[in-house]
Amino acid sequence: MPENNLVPSPETRPKPSRTTTRRRKSKKKTVAPRLRIIPLGGLGQIGKNMMALECGDDIIVIDAGIMFPSEEMIGVDTVIPDMSYLVENRTRVRGLVITHGHEDHIGAVSYLLSAVNVPVYATKLSTRLIAMGLKQKGSKVKAQVNEVAPGEVITLGCMTMEMFPVCHSIPDAVGLIIETPLGTIVHTGDFKLDHNPVIGEPTDLHRLALVGSKQVLLLLSDSTYAELPGYTPPEQTVADSLDRIVMGAKGRVIVATFSSLVARIQQVMDIAAKYKRHVFVTGRSMEGIVKVTSEIGYLNVPPRTVSKYEQIHNLPPDKVVILTTGTQGEPTSALVRMGTGEHPHVKIREGDTVVMSATPIPGNEQVVSKTINNLFRLGANVVYGSQSRVHVHGHGSEEELKTVFNLVRPKFFIPVHGEYRHLAKHAKIAEDMGIPRENIFVLDNGDVLELDGTKGKVVDKVPAGDFVANGPIIRELDVSVMRDRRLLSRDGVVFVTIVISPTTGRLEGEPVIVSKGFVDPEEYGELLEGGRKAVASAVALGKTAGSGRGAIEARARETLARYLYEKTHRKPVIIPVVTGL
Amino acid sequence: MPENNLVPSPETRPKPSRTTTRRRKSKKKTVAPRLRIIPLGGLGQIGKNMMALECGDDIIVIDAGIMFPSEEMIGVDTVIPDMSYLVENRTRVRGLVITHGHEDHIGAVSYLLSAVNVPVYATKLSTRLIAMGLKQKGSKVKAQVNEVAPGEVITLGCMTMEMFPVCHSIPDAVGLIIETPLGTIVHTGDFKLDHNPVIGEPTDLHRLALVGSKQVLLLLSDSTYAELPGYTPPEQTVADSLDRIVMGAKGRVIVATFSSLVARIQQVMDIAAKYKRHVFVTGRSMEGIVKVTSEIGYLNVPPRTVSKYEQIHNLPPDKVVILTTGTQGEPTSALVRMGTGEHPHVKIREGDTVVMSATPIPGNEQVVSKTINNLFRLGANVVYGSQSRVHVHGHGSEEELKTVFNLVRPKFFIPVHGEYRHLAKHAKIAEDMGIPRENIFVLDNGDVLELDGTKGKVVDKVPAGDFVANGPIIRELDVSVMRDRRLLSRDGVVFVTIVISPTTGRLEGEPVIVSKGFVDPEEYGELLEGGRKAVASAVALGKTAGSGRGAIEARARETLARYLYEKTHRKPVIIPVVTGL
Repeated sequence: MPENNLVPSPETRPKPSRTTTRRRKSKKKTVAPRLRIIPLGGLGQIGKNMMALECGDDIIVIDAGIMFPSEEMIGVDTVIPDMSYLVENRTRVRGLVITHGHEDHIGAVSYLLSAVNVPVYATKLSTRLIAMGLKQKGSKVKAQVNEVAPGEVITLGCMTMEMFPVCHSIPDAVGLIIETPLGTIVHTGDFKLDHNPVIGEPTDLHRLALVGSKQVLLLLSDSTYAELPGYTPPEQTVADSLDRIVMGAKGRVIVATFSSLVARIQQVMDIAAKYKRHVFVTGRSMEGIVKVTSEIGYLNVPPRTVSKYEQIHNLPPDKVVILTTGTQGEPTSALVRMGTGEHPHVKIREGDTVVMSATPIPGNEQVVSKTINNLFRLGANVVYGSQSRVHVHGHGSEEELKTVFNLVRPKFFIPVHGEYRHLAKHAKIAEDMGIPRENIFVLDNGDVLELDGTKGKVVDKVPAGDFVANGPIIRELDVSVMRDRRLLSRDGVVFVTIVISPTTGRLEGEPVIVSKGFVDPEEYGELLEGGRKAVASAVALGKTAGSGRGAIEARARETLARYLYEKTHRKPVIIPVVTGL
Repeated sequence: MPENNLVPSPETRPKPSRTTTRRRKSKKKTVAPRLRIIPLGGLGQIGKNMMALECGDDIIVIDAGIMFPSEEMIGVDTVIPDMSYLVENRTRVRGLVITHGHEDHIGAVSYLLSAVNVPVYATKLSTRLIAMGLKQKGSKVKAQVNEVAPGEVITLGCMTMEMFPVCHSIPDAVGLIIETPLGTIVHTGDFKLDHNPVIGEPTDLHRLALVGSKQVLLLLSDSTYAELPGYTPPEQTVADSLDRIVMGAKGRVIVATFSSLVARIQQVMDIAAKYKRHVFVTGRSMEGIVKVTSEIGYLNVPPRTVSKYEQIHNLPPDKVVILTTGTQGEPTSALVRMGTGEHPHVKIREGDTVVMSATPIPGNEQVVSKTINNLFRLGANVVYGSQSRVHVHGHGSEEELKTVFNLVRPKFFIPVHGEYRHLAKHAKIAEDMGIPRENIFVLDNGDVLELDGTKGKVVDKVPAGDFVANGPIIRELDVSVMRDRRLLSRDGVVFVTIVISPTTGRLEGEPVIVSKGFVDPEEYGELLEGGRKAVASAVALGKTAGSGRGAIEARARETLARYLYEKTHRKPVIIPVVTGL
């Protein structure tokens, strides 16, 4: 079985190389090193979940995240990037560098490490979240996760890597400055420009200006919101709206947001404290992040603000704030269960105000809308949408992207992080900013771009398909299996068993029909019984004598398909099994 | 079988009553008539696809549209409103009144008429589209579709109905003024205020003012864009953007929009003619609507503008406009096939400009995005999104809704057309406009609101579930079947057939395992073979002797489930069939 084919056996697994520079120095190079940039992570987003940066013999991996399956990937929970290129070149991989702690940047760390156990470099919060993830997944890998502070310089083969602070919707996000023998590379990571963020440092424009004062060879920059004009508003603007809502609310205020959006959590805590409301935190991931970020001092919980449910449930409604997750309509999340009346503690009632402090990620609009409708039906006032100003994005808009071009002044540019259309738009912005068209590369995952200092070219394509992870088991995404699942989900499946006597070659007993997802068998017993009879008469009557299994199966399938379509205008998948022959 | 249970047999079908007033007059009424409003159409949208208006013995049906299935309605193509209330009360239904020709307002006409064949009243274009729909569906109903002009008064039992022009994203849309013994009802239909529309009349504010100068009992108004502040821009603003794009384009311009958005088609034709470009129309529905609306003189095709493919394909690219459908990412639409390179005529190439003159309907964002990415990859410049101003909505925003309140000044108000959250927002707007809270009714489908002139109350609930239509066959939406389909689509299905000798009670031959949508059977033959062996040993070994079928099935299911989960971490649906016992 090809499962786990990404994971080499222990004997072939390379020793972690913490002293890669020594090994490199012992080699004598005669040819100039090639610089190769390979976006690997996937699912429509390009270069977001994983990238490889290759210089001569050395490979740096940037991020190892999971992808969220698209609609057509039926029955798939988690998608991870194709790591086979890294596995093949595992002796050359010098390290995994993490830009920030979102799942689409760290969720696949355990899979990568179990295939290629290299040192990991990440900022403080990211290291904690990686450790949490490894523990949750029950990973047995002995991971070497190194905490790195912005400004620290790490040597990775012939390259050095320095992190610089950027603002994003999670604390401790960084961009990268990578020095290579061919020149300097700047990678923004996910970022926005927020000059006065609620938590942490603003994006380090000074460092970018400094690096841009010498010739930067290559810029890789976040394209997620390249389509939005202007500037993304700063996080603090949300405080005004939240404050007004809490001040005016006569009942409980329930705020739902992303658990990793610690700055938002901080603002909710502060406003609750201001109005002497107690905060009840519910939802597993929200509770987890509040704990971790309080421990490392990132979240500053005002004294006597966070309370247990037993403490708040007898308080007057105007003394309560509930902080929770579920803004994406996740079926098991706290907010969704409040909407369906299934939350163990919180029953929504007239007078409650629910604040959706997030926007739906594309693809989630319908389920989110359903939760909003449910909450309204229960009598809550639901505050949501851009008009209500209770959320700001975590990525920079057009003018912020231009600011980065202006500071970094790169020779070459690769737009990353986004769908192809976002990269195309970002490429256009780069052209407007004076970068020659031939120096801009809109890549697809798996493209190998080679740069030699004066020009760049896509020279190769490496595997960058999508892999499906189920617990510890990794499998290639099988398109034919997906197609079968889609077929099954359309009209269900009908299974017909026919036993043929090995001696007479005739039908033995009656065919057995079982269906699933087609019609309710209790209500439609007559229909299925009719189908059974149709099959019986088609394969009986001595017709089967001398026929092969295939011929009988085909006749049964055809007969049943015709019968069921006539009666129902539906086309379930029909699976005949002839046995006993 | 309960299929087609909505369709009464011919004997019980009522004679169409074109002279309903006479019949009513012959009855003597002693009690004051009750006015009852019942939203029937469905799927999250309330009162959009079908409503019943009931006064005493008379029922008017407003619209009969199909719904587009939501994500969780796996394998369902078309959903129609539950018509059982109308079927039960079929002798009282005086007519079906159509507000406009969109599928979600006319798509279920054939189903309603085959159950309750009442006269249909609609404006000119709507009658043509209804006729097209009946023909396409192969309906055998002898439909009485009456063309009505705005201002004409139609008597329907104790009520009269007058249509007034409204602007919407299809020509010939109307609102309704219905006089009842209890007072006047105004129903806006789907509308926006466009004072200078490209085709047809502006929304008739004069008529609304006139009706509002006497006391209007009840307003029902379109809530679709109640969440948007301000005014929806007029259709003509799109012309400026389109003109600029066509003027600046050095290659072909491909414009995709809704086929029913005739005003947009008109604008594209006019701009093409201005720049001496030929228009090639592709996509079945687009070709159909261009034909119908040209015939009735609604679309004014400039001479020598529309050309066949053979005529345009040798023209210089800057002499070509291609008008097509597919803005919602429909898999078989022309634009989607251009994106995948599968369109028979149009191959996208560098220099093409593609204009997405529409926004994705909620739920379609991902598939639309995929098409945009595909078109960019092929080298097209794709113009889309609100920044590009190539689309305006067809529904009124907050200030337009307020304008209607201001003119109509109703005593009671029911927000209709929208999800619950839109109705809730519209109700809030109504309150702001001075309508007392107790006179505003946010209903759900199936709610029966009774009005007596001084107050209203929900007095009953009638069936308003969703029905699934497959060709001519109508079936109740079966939640358990949906759940099964979802299960099947997650990890597929594995069947195991076990033949037990009727004489010895022992396993006869080997179990047979067949899977679908689980794993690729060729690649994973070993896995399935292992499963087969596990089942064989679990049910063999004399264990089966004396066991019932149920016990053997349970043991087989359990064994196989455990084995497959261990090997794959997946949980396919397992269906054991024991036969021969």
